Amino acid sequence: MSELTGTQQSFRAAMANLSAAVNVVSTDGPCGRAGMTVSAACSVTDAPPTMLVCLNRASRSHGIVTGNGRLAVNVLADGQEDLAMHFAGATQVPTAERFDDAWDLDTHGVPVLRHAAAVVVGRIEAEQDLGSHTVLFVAVEHVRAHDDGGALVYFRRRFHRVGADALIA
Amino acid sequence: MSELTGTQQSFRAAMANLSAAVNVVSTDGPCGRAGMTVSAACSVTDAPPTMLVCLNRASRSHGIVTGNGRLAVNVLADGQEDLAMHFAGATQVPTAERFDDAWDLDTHGVPVLRHAAAVVVGRIEAEQDLGSHTVLFVAVEHVRAHDDGGALVYFRRRFHRVGADALIA
Repeated sequence: MSELTGTQQSFRAAMANLSAAVNVVSTDGPCGRAGMTVSAACSVTDAPPTMLVCLNRASRSHGIVTGNGRLAVNVLADGQEDLAMHFAGATQVPTAERFDDAWDLDTHGVPVLRHAAAVVVGRIEAEQDLGSHTVLFVAVEHVRAHDDGGALVYFRRRFHRVGADALIA
Repeated sequence: MSELTGTQQSFRAAMANLSAAVNVVSTDGPCGRAGMTVSAACSVTDAPPTMLVCLNRASRSHGIVTGNGRLAVNVLADGQEDLAMHFAGATQVPTAERFDDAWDLDTHGVPVLRHAAAVVVGRIEAEQDLGSHTVLFVAVEHVRAHDDGGALVYFRRRFHRVGADALIA
């Protein structure tokens, strides 16, 4: 057990214990095509259907996403760790090559990952800057969900898998 | 694969595939003591350390949390499914009895779960209403993290466990 005051370093250690889905936020439009791996995302309300995602303003993709005003949250499935790494900039794959034939680039105006655990396509309805990040509120236009298969989870700075192994409770 | 438009029902189905940590948001103060199970929570920025949590305005605890203005986000560990159920109102346990000796009620002014995967104690800095929910921005005052053990994940409306079984990537 680490007992810590609210410094940046201790906060990061605690947030590493907050498990989260791994998502690629993708965009396309007048400002260009981009994608970035994001774990800080959640549902806000279903009336009207709204998600939020937190983006680092220092990232190159930030201005592209907010400039285009439309995005997809592609929730990564079990086995898509390589995509998480690509879009986190942890590999040397050029941006253009990251969007290969695993992606549907045409149907929704923004890249949609064909075999994601879920995809939410929407329009940025509001933005709120807070410290280093911007919270984007996304009005949901289109939704896609896979009914089976597992999903990728980020916990203690490692990838994990959740799937059919549900607990009883 | 379900291909869906952005209705409430389809959005809920997609969000069931967005795996998330399971947290009990706890509060105490002039408006009383309360706790509620929340999966919509994430880190916003570490400069300054800030989290957000989304609460349903229709819940009884909403006014207590916002009235007190201080809360803890207790990130549930592996094996704490019973707490998730209690604080989701899925059991008949009265509120007063939910805060048993697993909780430290004194140190931080709000209940802190002793064996949580992580705890973040903070002050509500801003609120934003959006549809049925309020997004609470929490300025972090105090942090506690367990360095080992697993955590509870909610995925497809079931509890799962993440722990030592990290994937290679």
